[in-house]
Amino acid sequence: MADINSRLEIGVTTGPIRGSRKVHVGPLNVAMREIDLEPSSGEPPVRVYDTSGPYTDPNAVIDIAAGLPELRAAWIRGRGDVEEVTQREVKPEDNGQLGPDRSGGVPPFPRVRQKVLRAKPGMNVSQMHYARRGIITPEMEYVATRENLGRERLREYAREGQSFGAAIPDYVTPEFVRDEVARGRAIIPSNINHPETEPMAIGRNFLVKINANIGNSAVASDVASEVDKMVWATRWGADTVMDLSTGRNIHDTREWILRNSPVPIGTVPIYQALEKVGGIAEELTWEIFRDTLIEQAEQGVDYFTIHAGVRLPYVPLAAKRVTGIVSRGGSIMAKWCLAHHKESFLYEHFDEITEIMKAYDIAYSLGDGLRPGSIADANDEAQFAELYTLGELTHRAWKEDVQVMIEGPGHVPMHKIKENMDKQLEVCGEAPFYTLGPLVTDIAPGYDHITSGIGAAQIGWYGTAMLCYVTPKEHLGLPDRDDVKVGVVTYKLAAHAADLAKGHPAAQVRDDALSRARFEFRWRDQFNLSLDPETAEQYHDQTLPAEGAKSAHFCSMCGPKFCSMKISQDVRDFASKQNQSADGFIASMQSAAEAAAASKEAALKGMAEMSALYEEKGRELYLGAGDRERD
Amino acid sequence: MADINSRLEIGVTTGPIRGSRKVHVGPLNVAMREIDLEPSSGEPPVRVYDTSGPYTDPNAVIDIAAGLPELRAAWIRGRGDVEEVTQREVKPEDNGQLGPDRSGGVPPFPRVRQKVLRAKPGMNVSQMHYARRGIITPEMEYVATRENLGRERLREYAREGQSFGAAIPDYVTPEFVRDEVARGRAIIPSNINHPETEPMAIGRNFLVKINANIGNSAVASDVASEVDKMVWATRWGADTVMDLSTGRNIHDTREWILRNSPVPIGTVPIYQALEKVGGIAEELTWEIFRDTLIEQAEQGVDYFTIHAGVRLPYVPLAAKRVTGIVSRGGSIMAKWCLAHHKESFLYEHFDEITEIMKAYDIAYSLGDGLRPGSIADANDEAQFAELYTLGELTHRAWKEDVQVMIEGPGHVPMHKIKENMDKQLEVCGEAPFYTLGPLVTDIAPGYDHITSGIGAAQIGWYGTAMLCYVTPKEHLGLPDRDDVKVGVVTYKLAAHAADLAKGHPAAQVRDDALSRARFEFRWRDQFNLSLDPETAEQYHDQTLPAEGAKSAHFCSMCGPKFCSMKISQDVRDFASKQNQSADGFIASMQSAAEAAAASKEAALKGMAEMSALYEEKGRELYLGAGDRERD
Repeated sequence: MADINSRLEIGVTTGPIRGSRKVHVGPLNVAMREIDLEPSSGEPPVRVYDTSGPYTDPNAVIDIAAGLPELRAAWIRGRGDVEEVTQREVKPEDNGQLGPDRSGGVPPFPRVRQKVLRAKPGMNVSQMHYARRGIITPEMEYVATRENLGRERLREYAREGQSFGAAIPDYVTPEFVRDEVARGRAIIPSNINHPETEPMAIGRNFLVKINANIGNSAVASDVASEVDKMVWATRWGADTVMDLSTGRNIHDTREWILRNSPVPIGTVPIYQALEKVGGIAEELTWEIFRDTLIEQAEQGVDYFTIHAGVRLPYVPLAAKRVTGIVSRGGSIMAKWCLAHHKESFLYEHFDEITEIMKAYDIAYSLGDGLRPGSIADANDEAQFAELYTLGELTHRAWKEDVQVMIEGPGHVPMHKIKENMDKQLEVCGEAPFYTLGPLVTDIAPGYDHITSGIGAAQIGWYGTAMLCYVTPKEHLGLPDRDDVKVGVVTYKLAAHAADLAKGHPAAQVRDDALSRARFEFRWRDQFNLSLDPETAEQYHDQTLPAEGAKSAHFCSMCGPKFCSMKISQDVRDFASKQNQSADGFIASMQSAAEAAAASKEAALKGMAEMSALYEEKGRELYLGAGDRERD
Repeated sequence: MADINSRLEIGVTTGPIRGSRKVHVGPLNVAMREIDLEPSSGEPPVRVYDTSGPYTDPNAVIDIAAGLPELRAAWIRGRGDVEEVTQREVKPEDNGQLGPDRSGGVPPFPRVRQKVLRAKPGMNVSQMHYARRGIITPEMEYVATRENLGRERLREYAREGQSFGAAIPDYVTPEFVRDEVARGRAIIPSNINHPETEPMAIGRNFLVKINANIGNSAVASDVASEVDKMVWATRWGADTVMDLSTGRNIHDTREWILRNSPVPIGTVPIYQALEKVGGIAEELTWEIFRDTLIEQAEQGVDYFTIHAGVRLPYVPLAAKRVTGIVSRGGSIMAKWCLAHHKESFLYEHFDEITEIMKAYDIAYSLGDGLRPGSIADANDEAQFAELYTLGELTHRAWKEDVQVMIEGPGHVPMHKIKENMDKQLEVCGEAPFYTLGPLVTDIAPGYDHITSGIGAAQIGWYGTAMLCYVTPKEHLGLPDRDDVKVGVVTYKLAAHAADLAKGHPAAQVRDDALSRARFEFRWRDQFNLSLDPETAEQYHDQTLPAEGAKSAHFCSMCGPKFCSMKISQDVRDFASKQNQSADGFIASMQSAAEAAAASKEAALKGMAEMSALYEEKGRELYLGAGDRERD
């Protein structure tokens, strides 16, 4: 282990995102971000959802070695259903026995708790359990305020959209949140040992969320860079972060991440369990897996990916695939099942896992171990067999009031995406769907944030509650800091596009503010309102670097003399003069309607004539002649 | 003007795209690209569509100052319906009167033709005219061979997809091409003065195409970099290129581009006409515009964007918009209409324009001057009024056997995209739709290749024939070389995703070849099969730079000990052993089916129980309780 001072090497990005301020709203001080517009706009600041935690708050003192303040600690303890227990002792194998040290010289987190929380015997501390008992928790209240973002301007917007059966309310009340959680249609991942989180909901009737994956692998990365990536990902909008570390230093990496994360953290516990048995899947046992769950539960992981749907009889279905089993967890379990010719221990011990989830309020993220790894394998027997089992397990977890979401594919061509959503909604009873992409083609490695962003926007529109990001490095390497940002921003825009299409009442506020800024040449407002102000400004400056160009009423595309926006202003001025006389306005509208109707009639008449031509003369004219004019 | 030697400063990228060879197929020597796979794969080369022209042919001699060989010259002259005329003399105003010289020291193209071609009096040289007379031209034959790409492997593929009424054949025959062109459902842009093009078709029953925009503006870029961008864009897959130059040197820039372009070139002639009147829209006249059309027709422009649908009565409809009129051409015409309070001269003189189009075989690209510039303005009255007029004009052009495509939006949220396609198909009689994006949200400047790629993939699936690319610089600045590539690759993957979803019979060959390469750790094959092999390899090497890693049976994401692909191979081996006994195979399938059915039943039963719970106890349990447990 390195000297304790080396912890200072963990650097993270702090300070406000440019052009915006951290604000705290309501009695629970819900954190949001406000983007101020230029005074000339006469517009109020635009309030946007903020996942970045205290790191963007200039008043917050950030000490990575101390961790974040425990926002939820009093709420958790105040419910009277938890007790303190001594934390399970860290074993050497928790940090991996094999391979090179990947700490990068970072020691264990210095302020590891000696005591952790657990539900009192017989108690269930899940948000779903409270919800079903009619209790509105502070977490639910926090979520309600947080989701209401922008809805105060609802009156300006006619609600429209195609929601495919979602039921997004005009305003989110704490009671609505409670009801959605009670029904299982939303989850609030909130391990009682991760009190640092700012509560958030994942469900089809809330804003579409995104997840960013980070983590060491056996061949790359280190602890400091993973903590940095976590803070960086949430800065740009990651709603949750999954720590997918493998190789060594898994336990310590996770501790550093959890203590410093303002968003829920998910993991795939089988990864660590596998490290504990030296990477040999056959040697996994329920006992080792169970111990790993406890280890991670006590650290505060908010949701666990559990591949309990990879059942023994489904494994051979994957053999005929183009890309077999591409989920790591899925392939580990498949190998275990085959080696022992036994049903999966995750499936067999599912109810015992549920008991652990209850005691800490960890949400299930039921893993899609048989998801397709290529469009050739999309929507096949193996995939849907597993999905049906995930549906069965959802209801088993719900009987115990444990929160559940369902993981989804993967690689799916566009015309097969909706079937995934429809089947998931049906068999999983509207439990939140959490999909990876899907990628709509396999031919663009290096651009899979885009191939998957296309699928993600669509499936988000159809009802997926959380989109797992894909970075440009997908299939090729581990994402670095820049890749993480590109992945997050790509998925933010996909999620936002889905919100718009679903008819989310608050979504369009930001689009319209940005469009007005664009129309009025308020360049700085345009940059600040964008998902990535720095990149927007940098691109602008590459063509027109002068500071004056940022207030210039033109851009580099058209130049000063030849600007459509400017001409539009003229048109608007003209029309507004004309419309001062009501007669003029009505007359111009009438003539527009008449001209358009006449054009439409002419077009349809033209088409009818052409069809008739085909019918009458087509045989000889179009089919009979086969001669070629050629030299 | 600079010294003639400075033309040597025009550098373009030549040589094969890595891992592939130029091949020429059939009697017309149709250019294609073949990607060879590693011998260990036992797979044939994958043949892909190739837009790059001679530049990727190591046997071709490239001389930018001489231009490309005239592939179609003999075909055009052989039809006996053209005559040579003396080219209109270049006037000073053709290269702009105002602003700084933007040639970058590049002189006029040295080998400008003195004589150009025009239809003999009374003749119509359009591909549509031949098609309607039952003539299959070499251009149509070329297109048939080109589009058939990969279809020889059709037997391996079950056709599936959702085509929304498209009628893509199993095999493309020259007769099919002729019929599609005759019906107006496809165009083959092929100005008789641009014999350098390799014929291509734009239509919903062909592969979805993409266009790349390039061009000088009044404040940036120069001739050499535009020629370079044209070659660069076609290298990565641009099916057509639009030269949107404004400012000075427009005529010369276009000549350099046309003489060196293997793909059809489109322009917006009103841009140049405006330069000729010093940028003052009101001073435009039909005569100046007409002269510009002749100028560009003689140079060889293959399609003209004509904003004839921006009619006087529609202009006030744009005044209430968030972003007014964002099309440059649209705003110029709107300003002209308002200033003169007269109907658009483009609309009034439409039939005269059609006469010019006939004489050179220039296709209409009927411009959407009133397209929405923000999602707030999508699908509004102004936009659809114009679309109806474009439908009317389509039928007027078709009466004269002139080829037509229709330009479409713009900025449209996902739930409003399909309406655009449906209305266009209806009123424009299935004339090819050519859309810009659409962008599905306005909040991501810097990432608008992605916001628009999402919309493009969808509208391509619904039936759009050509997608106009958007680069990361959209709204912010002029694209440089890197932006052009990112834009092209993004749109190639969107177009390909659309082909897959439509059920194009040949599309999936490349996906599957790449997926197999991925599964078998043939890294080089994976790079070479991707749309951008260089980026794919570079990303891989960032994590695992060693040359040996390219044949390693693992990747940086999992590392050597922990690889799902490797485990899948084990599963496959296991299953294949098991399946050597037919009984074992059938038994495992049966048990999988039974397990899945049981899970599905359990899931649906669970859901039913929960619904019942809601019905029975819901009133008191979920709605009655309002108490809060909190400290």
